[in-house]
Amino acid sequence: MRIATIAGDGIGPEVISAAMQVLNTAAPGDGFQYEVTDFPFSAAHFLETGHVLDDDDIAELKKYDAIFLGAVGGLPNDPRLAGGVIEKGILLKLRFELDQYINLRPVTLYPGIDTPLKDKTSEHINFVCVRENTEDLYCGVGGFVRKGTAQEVSNQTMVATRFGAERCIRYAFELAKTRERKQLTLVHKTNVLTFAGDTWFRTFKAVAEDYPEVTTDYHHVDACCMYMVAKPELYDVIVVPNMFGDIITDLGAAIAGGMGIASSGNLNPDGTAPSMFEPVHGSAPDIAGQNLANPIATIDSLGLLLRETGRIKGDKAAIACGERIGAAVKAVTPKFAGKSLDRSGYGTDEIGKMVADAL
Amino acid sequence: MRIATIAGDGIGPEVISAAMQVLNTAAPGDGFQYEVTDFPFSAAHFLETGHVLDDDDIAELKKYDAIFLGAVGGLPNDPRLAGGVIEKGILLKLRFELDQYINLRPVTLYPGIDTPLKDKTSEHINFVCVRENTEDLYCGVGGFVRKGTAQEVSNQTMVATRFGAERCIRYAFELAKTRERKQLTLVHKTNVLTFAGDTWFRTFKAVAEDYPEVTTDYHHVDACCMYMVAKPELYDVIVVPNMFGDIITDLGAAIAGGMGIASSGNLNPDGTAPSMFEPVHGSAPDIAGQNLANPIATIDSLGLLLRETGRIKGDKAAIACGERIGAAVKAVTPKFAGKSLDRSGYGTDEIGKMVADAL
Ligand SMILES: CC(C)[C@H](C(=O)O)[C@@H](O)C(=O)O
Ligand SMILES: CC(C)[C@H](C(=O)O)[C@@H](O)C(=O)O
Repeated sequence: MRIATIAGDGIGPEVISAAMQVLNTAAPGDGFQYEVTDFPFSAAHFLETGHVLDDDDIAELKKYDAIFLGAVGGLPNDPRLAGGVIEKGILLKLRFELDQYINLRPVTLYPGIDTPLKDKTSEHINFVCVRENTEDLYCGVGGFVRKGTAQEVSNQTMVATRFGAERCIRYAFELAKTRERKQLTLVHKTNVLTFAGDTWFRTFKAVAEDYPEVTTDYHHVDACCMYMVAKPELYDVIVVPNMFGDIITDLGAAIAGGMGIASSGNLNPDGTAPSMFEPVHGSAPDIAGQNLANPIATIDSLGLLLRETGRIKGDKAAIACGERIGAAVKAVTPKFAGKSLDRSGYGTDEIGKMVADAL
Repeated sequence: MRIATIAGDGIGPEVISAAMQVLNTAAPGDGFQYEVTDFPFSAAHFLETGHVLDDDDIAELKKYDAIFLGAVGGLPNDPRLAGGVIEKGILLKLRFELDQYINLRPVTLYPGIDTPLKDKTSEHINFVCVRENTEDLYCGVGGFVRKGTAQEVSNQTMVATRFGAERCIRYAFELAKTRERKQLTLVHKTNVLTFAGDTWFRTFKAVAEDYPEVTTDYHHVDACCMYMVAKPELYDVIVVPNMFGDIITDLGAAIAGGMGIASSGNLNPDGTAPSMFEPVHGSAPDIAGQNLANPIATIDSLGLLLRETGRIKGDKAAIACGERIGAAVKAVTPKFAGKSLDRSGYGTDEIGKMVADAL
């Protein structure tokens, strides 16, 4: 497997390096063969060279089987990075250009990890969000009228298509089918978004007919946020458009112990271009380079990379290796019991070694 | 004060009647004079007569000083009510036609009320959301191309204006100025919504110059949801556009004890038309008519109605009466300690009497 790494900014390089240490240890046991190439795309690289990520870079990245990203982003409030130049120029560009139409975000409370919710355990917090990743308010469609005047109007358009909704919803049904509860909830805001919401709702109903074994439900996004806090056990698989998905998956990360533990995959399930995997957390420039960052979310994202890319490419050794890494992460998380994930007292490299040892 | 009541569907009539019992008891003490007229607008009324709420109704309602609404909405999944006919036809129509451009939602953990969050008390959960209420994805702007085909596209447009953002942001600064912490956070998604988000961000910066005594901050909506669960003490006043406001205020209701306790005001601060006040919960048809509904959120919304309408109209007796009702609610909530709000064992009328007695 050819893996392109984009270590990125801040703590990105440290957490990627801890994950690579884990991969080095894990791979031989499963006969998993891989090579890794580093790419410099980051806020720092942009500030130095003026180069973000262009079409040639995309063409180059397409040669790889998977992309593994640490974190990109500079100092908050750096005016040279305003308007989402890095987020749009790197993260969203990769998602759109590589047609990574699924953003997969597991919301699982791991053993030993503290949830901010009372009376909730791993039994209650154990679901997966399937977020559409290539449409919606993320298309960049919109504009200004009379910008800068008292009469300024701006429009920002949510775009939904039958094609885009259907492939995402179908992916979610396929996933739900493989799970024990086989339960899928569509999250949208159909009572207000009578165009985009209607496209999603009708598509959901239509696709559901192909999956009689899956139980379906529908929640408005506002109600979903309440339930995620009050009754997260309602959920098994959630399917949700891009913008609402962005919001509820951060909330999901929060109830499962915070950004320090949340992994994600940006999948091109058809394998026409590489998928990308990244921890949900940012570059945390304040603690960068001090061996303080917790690499657990990155290591877990690596496990996801191997399992998902393995499935797409039919690489059984990759799947086996990804499963072992996932299990090793769960074997290590009890060591964080009673500690905060981001101030655990363990160094970045030490946590990498803990997972490697658990293998 | 002339108050129009729209008791509505399900538990609406019961909770409004409990609140009216409180008002009857409270008003004489403050010399507050009022008259009440009931209006039938509801899902039930629509199903019976085909009439939702038309322009003549709006003209009639404009003659009142305030509107007090219980809950509107029929059975979930009733196909005759699909597409938000009641939500859009009553709630949103009132907000838009009466130019109720502020949706005010306090997020306060009351004494004795249980939050689903660990280690959080009334000290940590004590903020106010100022949600813009007349723009954004709520304008109904959008449409379909090739609806019903495999090539279907739908657009739904978020509309932001300098005028709309500014009057809302200014209201939020004025509110923040009166509070102890004097802290205002803008919540948006500027790194992705580069048009609508930019209008809001620039307007926020510009208005902030008029309020040097207010400390300001900016959070992306996804991060805000995480913080509301992990660190709600970050917030004093939040200002947020309509759709994101819908989402974070439901989350706010959840952390402050749930729908059973959340009050809200749809304000026309200029007094050019009546403001509307309503509990955040719905019509709960499953428990309607059984004296089971908790009227606390409705009674608290009545307190808000009196204080806010009193301020807009310069009616001191109304303000005093609203303050006493607010205090009585807080005196009663400890009785719910250790109980769930919606299955407390107290009847709807009994809770009304408890608040009346506390006056
Ligand atoms: C950085 C930002 C553009 C991105 C998003 O909004 O999708 C992030 O919040 C995420 O969820 O991956
Ligand atoms: C019923 C619905 C239209 C409404 C909204 O989305 O504003 C509700 O969720 C609310 O928050 O008052």
